Amino acid sequence: MKILITSGGTSESIDSVRSITNHSTGRLGKKMADLFLNKGDHVTLVTTAAAVKPNKHKNLSILEVTNVESLIETLEPLVKEHDIFIHSMAVSDYTPVYMTDVKTLEHTKNMETLLHHKNTESKISSKADYQVLFLKKTPKVISLVKKWNPNITLIGFKLLVKTNKEELLNTARESLHNNQADYVLANDLAQISHDKHIAYLLDKHHVFKAQTKSEIAQLIFEKVRTNHD
Amino acid sequence: MKILITSGGTSESIDSVRSITNHSTGRLGKKMADLFLNKGDHVTLVTTAAAVKPNKHKNLSILEVTNVESLIETLEPLVKEHDIFIHSMAVSDYTPVYMTDVKTLEHTKNMETLLHHKNTESKISSKADYQVLFLKKTPKVISLVKKWNPNITLIGFKLLVKTNKEELLNTARESLHNNQADYVLANDLAQISHDKHIAYLLDKHHVFKAQTKSEIAQLIFEKVRTNHD
Repeated sequence: MKILITSGGTSESIDSVRSITNHSTGRLGKKMADLFLNKGDHVTLVTTAAAVKPNKHKNLSILEVTNVESLIETLEPLVKEHDIFIHSMAVSDYTPVYMTDVKTLEHTKNMETLLHHKNTESKISSKADYQVLFLKKTPKVISLVKKWNPNITLIGFKLLVKTNKEELLNTARESLHNNQADYVLANDLAQISHDKHIAYLLDKHHVFKAQTKSEIAQLIFEKVRTNHD
Repeated sequence: MKILITSGGTSESIDSVRSITNHSTGRLGKKMADLFLNKGDHVTLVTTAAAVKPNKHKNLSILEVTNVESLIETLEPLVKEHDIFIHSMAVSDYTPVYMTDVKTLEHTKNMETLLHHKNTESKISSKADYQVLFLKKTPKVISLVKKWNPNITLIGFKLLVKTNKEELLNTARESLHNNQADYVLANDLAQISHDKHIAYLLDKHHVFKAQTKSEIAQLIFEKVRTNHD
């Protein structure tokens, strides 16, 4: 089987020295890659420079991306030629559009116009006491997957912060439905620490619980295996 | 001699999953640390998790910081007990204050009020098409150094992007004067690549040029040595 995994977190540039980064160590992606490789599968890992990576392996290809744009470009052809896609990457939901000082903002009658401005300088000046940064929503990568390849088994990830179990599962179910995902792994940042990682793997009818990154990797491995046997 | 070096780039949190990061590999800081260690000096390196670090050494202490606040807390006592401070870290000049959607912004009569808002949610919602992030200037760490310790030899760094040599040197001279630095290392991102790093080391009366990271490290080493002999 050909497994496509994403890990790490994307970064969106503000200018040539600053960017907005989504944090993710890549440790879970590494664990999943190792597990599939050990069972003889081929793994393509799409990740970021800062993420932890698996050791070299003859059945492993690693591709690095930076922002959402490069992620989409890289994923589209790969999604079309893999059987399973485990999308654990923390993807930026907003990308910078324009940065200016608060004075300019106060003197602008129609805010909407600022959404179409662009910074022409390479490094935005740091003189003003306050700045304002406009951001726009990035395309939802997970919503494109089944359009690219309706036959791929898609495992999405949903991370919330300090929510309760019911809300977490409901949000994951929405994502399952909206993105035609086969499974969604739902987790809460407040329940992730060095040696603990509480998570729920959902499909349309079931919820399975895991307590560590190894258990999550094992659970996903078993479910996608059963699906493909 | 006791040498204090900073390297890497700080990150300022937007919420618990996103932050604004200043990029810096830490490679120059590592080279400088290695050079001083090889000559028998004691080195304290204040750096970030993502930065490249020197190998372990009996005369080397490494401390990790995240944002400007933790940098200042860490540096103040260290500046007071070191002879030389080489401040090569890329320090965030703005920190997030408040993030909201553009609709809210349009309905706010007095923008200033938004500068005093705070996000109470742990992960800011990603439903709106456009968001606006207010940022405020961080304290200028380099301007505090001589107040903490008037006797320390201070080497500041100034990075511009796509400027000309005259403007670069003028900006560096301003920094030299405003921060009572003994030297400023001026460089332009457009003139830094894998094997090249054009830079100018300035004091009040001289300008010295270097073409690689190794030359920069050597130049700084020689100048601060001469100063202290």
